[in-house]
Amino acid sequence: MKEADIITLAHGHGGRAMNDLIKNIFLPAFGHKELAKMGDAALLEIPQASLAVSTDSFVVNPLFFPGGDIGKLAVAGTVNDLAVSGATPLYLTAGFIMEEGCPLTTVAKIARSMAREALEAGIAIVAGDTKVVERGKGDGVFINTTGVGSLGFGPVVGYEKIQPGDSILINGDMGLHGMAVLSRRHGIELESGITSDCASLNGLIRQVLAGCREEVKFMRDPTRGGAAAALTEIAAASGLDILLDERLLPIPAEVKGYCDFLGLDPLYLANEGKVLLVIDPAAREKALRTLRSHPLGTDSCEIGQVKEKSLPKGEGRVLLKTLYGGTREIADDGGLQLPRIC
Amino acid sequence: MKEADIITLAHGHGGRAMNDLIKNIFLPAFGHKELAKMGDAALLEIPQASLAVSTDSFVVNPLFFPGGDIGKLAVAGTVNDLAVSGATPLYLTAGFIMEEGCPLTTVAKIARSMAREALEAGIAIVAGDTKVVERGKGDGVFINTTGVGSLGFGPVVGYEKIQPGDSILINGDMGLHGMAVLSRRHGIELESGITSDCASLNGLIRQVLAGCREEVKFMRDPTRGGAAAALTEIAAASGLDILLDERLLPIPAEVKGYCDFLGLDPLYLANEGKVLLVIDPAAREKALRTLRSHPLGTDSCEIGQVKEKSLPKGEGRVLLKTLYGGTREIADDGGLQLPRIC
Repeated sequence: MKEADIITLAHGHGGRAMNDLIKNIFLPAFGHKELAKMGDAALLEIPQASLAVSTDSFVVNPLFFPGGDIGKLAVAGTVNDLAVSGATPLYLTAGFIMEEGCPLTTVAKIARSMAREALEAGIAIVAGDTKVVERGKGDGVFINTTGVGSLGFGPVVGYEKIQPGDSILINGDMGLHGMAVLSRRHGIELESGITSDCASLNGLIRQVLAGCREEVKFMRDPTRGGAAAALTEIAAASGLDILLDERLLPIPAEVKGYCDFLGLDPLYLANEGKVLLVIDPAAREKALRTLRSHPLGTDSCEIGQVKEKSLPKGEGRVLLKTLYGGTREIADDGGLQLPRIC
Repeated sequence: MKEADIITLAHGHGGRAMNDLIKNIFLPAFGHKELAKMGDAALLEIPQASLAVSTDSFVVNPLFFPGGDIGKLAVAGTVNDLAVSGATPLYLTAGFIMEEGCPLTTVAKIARSMAREALEAGIAIVAGDTKVVERGKGDGVFINTTGVGSLGFGPVVGYEKIQPGDSILINGDMGLHGMAVLSRRHGIELESGITSDCASLNGLIRQVLAGCREEVKFMRDPTRGGAAAALTEIAAASGLDILLDERLLPIPAEVKGYCDFLGLDPLYLANEGKVLLVIDPAAREKALRTLRSHPLGTDSCEIGQVKEKSLPKGEGRVLLKTLYGGTREIADDGGLQLPRIC
């Protein structure tokens, strides 16, 4: 590959090569007027004075996987963090740490993917930064995205609203992102063509909040560490137990089979297009109807309920009622199995 | 070093090890109530509905250098990008990409340094993220910071305000950050103890804007690529020439000597506590008095002026009137000399 076609240290130095990279690849892809000014900060308007801000770095390996790539993931991941907080995502910043030798075509493909996903999610990429590290001091491309959202729309959800009896919903199949990344990493062909669920959920969430404004108590996207990590956090913070019913978990047979084979638990597999909703049980059917009417929620279902804490001492726990009628606890440290999933 | 004392892949997995890292190191250091909630997004108030947003990734090598470290740099760098845009820095996010094997003491030292600088600058660290990459896929610690500021205070500066005759000021000695990092990287002891100028400039800038609200046309912090990169950007964007006077450049003798020795040009050395101000010449003395009355501006001086464009075709250029009376052009691509300076 020619020098002109790869990332070189010169692309990281604040001079002409860096400016060319930004002008040839990033500006055409992202195209926001504040970005094009290449100022020190983007100057923005926001309808309300209450903000949500979220940051996430992405180090997924491989950069491209069935159903997505690091660029799509970097946009959708931060959009979703804002959306589950009850905010409307408005603005996104993008920071790139690129390894010397990375092909420019790879960088351009990632930038276009980010632009597509940002358009899909209705969020503007308004500020950016590029850095280059020497060969062997990075790994292709790392991306940080930071999102700013407005809290004008919808309720502010919170742990304190969660009560025993609340219903836990999810908008479809679990474990798809983790599965897709793992399969590509290990060179395994999936017969059924399972792909990452990576998607921006702000549209889906806006729809369910519009119908069930008061009844949605809490939302979280079960990404790194999977549903297990997200639910153990909810249990710990709310001081309540969560009882999952294994018969209700929407885990595709192929994900189950592959997990059995590798000794993994699908509850710890990352999702990148899923939201867990804690909802007043009276609104369960209405919320499920609303979720199912959206393309990203057609397979929405209930997977469990919030319960009074079963151990008087200690934090709330996540318990799984198994297919065989037993109950086992889901701990929060089973995620060890999957490095660099997002 | 024991397993418990270094970053392991488990710290990146979204489970207990990651939560312990956050609770033991980052939360005690940063301590904002929104951060402590460990939600998906920080929920914030902002006095005005006009925002400035800026993002920057830091990959400086070495992590610790005379006068600062990557943590101080990561806070001051983004604070300064907001401040030179005319914004009051309010909120900061911090994203860490850590290499497996990095000592926890290093991470903790960096976190404390960030906390100190954030306190100094009056900015709150409100959201964060931690990722871990395998040994040899990163380099110690990379940090992204993204800042949100309010545009309620001071004017919005802009290229379009710059006119021939405007004065170019700087708040003190040039080249100190680049020099300090290079000396540490190459194991050179500097006799005079030159240290990085790394500092948050929002206090200094607030002070000069309070006195010269209308007269400050434009500001930029001459970081990566040095004054040369910052001034060539200003010349290109304003369509005007900038004439620097070499006799006026505040470059310490030791920086000059070291640059001569290594074949570097001090105009390309990074600064991390300097601001270039383009100012109406009528306000020059007043601005200099105000700058000099602040601890970070005691050595403020004028270094050149804006001129009509000398080449009718093409962009504005930066010209240097040398000590010997000649004039040479400063190009924007001499920054190639210094990788990973910030």
